[in-house]
Amino acid sequence: MALRVAFLGPLASFSHQAAAESFGRLAADLQPKSSFNDAFAALQSNEADYAVIPCENSTNGSVVQTLDLLADRDNLYQDVKVCGEYYLTVHHCLLARKGLYPSWAEYDGSITKLYTHPQAWGQCETFLGKYFKGVERQDVSSTSKGGELVSKDTEERGGAIASRFAAEHHGTDVLVENIEDRADNTTRFLILRNVLAERTAQLEFEQPNPPTEGCALETTHKTLISFLVDHSSPGALANALLIFKNHGLNLTSINTRPSLKKPWQYVFFVECGRTPSEENKDAVHKAINDLRQVTELCRDLGTWKDQLSANA
Amino acid sequence: MALRVAFLGPLASFSHQAAAESFGRLAADLQPKSSFNDAFAALQSNEADYAVIPCENSTNGSVVQTLDLLADRDNLYQDVKVCGEYYLTVHHCLLARKGLYPSWAEYDGSITKLYTHPQAWGQCETFLGKYFKGVERQDVSSTSKGGELVSKDTEERGGAIASRFAAEHHGTDVLVENIEDRADNTTRFLILRNVLAERTAQLEFEQPNPPTEGCALETTHKTLISFLVDHSSPGALANALLIFKNHGLNLTSINTRPSLKKPWQYVFFVECGRTPSEENKDAVHKAINDLRQVTELCRDLGTWKDQLSANA
Repeated sequence: MALRVAFLGPLASFSHQAAAESFGRLAADLQPKSSFNDAFAALQSNEADYAVIPCENSTNGSVVQTLDLLADRDNLYQDVKVCGEYYLTVHHCLLARKGLYPSWAEYDGSITKLYTHPQAWGQCETFLGKYFKGVERQDVSSTSKGGELVSKDTEERGGAIASRFAAEHHGTDVLVENIEDRADNTTRFLILRNVLAERTAQLEFEQPNPPTEGCALETTHKTLISFLVDHSSPGALANALLIFKNHGLNLTSINTRPSLKKPWQYVFFVECGRTPSEENKDAVHKAINDLRQVTELCRDLGTWKDQLSANA
Repeated sequence: MALRVAFLGPLASFSHQAAAESFGRLAADLQPKSSFNDAFAALQSNEADYAVIPCENSTNGSVVQTLDLLADRDNLYQDVKVCGEYYLTVHHCLLARKGLYPSWAEYDGSITKLYTHPQAWGQCETFLGKYFKGVERQDVSSTSKGGELVSKDTEERGGAIASRFAAEHHGTDVLVENIEDRADNTTRFLILRNVLAERTAQLEFEQPNPPTEGCALETTHKTLISFLVDHSSPGALANALLIFKNHGLNLTSINTRPSLKKPWQYVFFVECGRTPSEENKDAVHKAINDLRQVTELCRDLGTWKDQLSANA
């Protein structure tokens, strides 16, 4: 049976693209899920082998839905852990119905309506201001949806802002590529698995085309750990963070979400890195043991190969 | 001239209520602003003396718009600092047009449509499931807007979910109070001022009715500090956080936002507390000096009296 990989739908979304690029060489069965919850539930119930879920964007910051599911306050997803990451640079294109315009050079300015996800307008302001000033804009639920609409519509002259991946999926032309303002806008996806599923135990993820920005000097592994700290307990948070340093683990990111147990108590998500060596092979295990002395509900959410350092 | 206090509009919003409760005794001139940016800009240009801005909710977490403005990546709000905080417990009521129903006891089940902000539906599920199953729901841009709609409409039998403050503002009846699922859902507001404005230099905020949840044992002061750390610089973050401990400052919260200078570099917002004493009166100043050695763009964003510890 092919590997079953859940991603956040619809078809031809950026999550779909990330899943296709991470699992493309494995001929996986890619399955769209309509919510973050559904993707986690599919893993926990073994209906999927992996899930590819956005966790952070270099412009917009953390994806709180993902953090809330990893916090797992109701113990629904106890066996779901991170086993990899994938960095996808967000490139937007201008899409039009196949054959409507021979090329961008010959474009006659006749597009009367543009479709895309609300967030994408702001990411392509320079291009839109130059070529589509005053043209009607229609919000749609995803960039992929915009591509689908222009692929089918024969009545009007519409354009969509979406990925090349969406253009290929819906069979539209790509009039212009890379119309985004920021060339470095990147979404990081987490690759999740069910730790009890034996068939996914051996695979180690290697991003085929890792980003070059911000690369560390050596190959490192990252680990995600969550724990609860109450802000009314003086020193507890500083002591918890000091434990990482004491075990040679480099803090790479910190996120917090409300615990929902009581106000102003937080779930912390700490990501830490290490260059694997004989000396530090038990560092994560030891750190978690120490963390359990000073925090509540400390959980190891998985270790994976850092793709930012992979090809440095 | 009365103190001019900007808040995030519309009129009768929860921000308006927080501003009215914090500045009520000072007969301040409360001014609605249509965006977070406008409130910050009014302070920086001295068109307002204070601004009352939501920064965190005990259920939903941090308000990223506020963090992004405090990050001040384009140096627009250099003189804006935090000088106080206000905790507002979010209570929802069922509002109806004045005189439509004599009381909830005599309510005959004839409301055919409910209005509120999308987030409020989810906060009142138990009540709605019990009394308003199947009743049409209309999303509106704010809970206050829903109150305004039912106050004016004489054609239909509408109800709104909004605060008692909004009911009083729009002149509606309150049929039932405290219909929210979580009695402890609380929004924390920051009170901001322009540090160069002399007329606001002396006021120290004391919340008239501080919350009792999570109280510390002693009166403490909180300080907010921001700085930039790059995750590819090993140990930098741990070293920065250790500085707070070294100066006896207790970490109470940590938030991060993308720096937007380069991917995976973050602006950290660290809130720390201390019980004021002769020994630690320079602790914040010393910590910032040390932080400048290991971080970039370290900024002191203000010190204020911790309202969670005020009445312990």
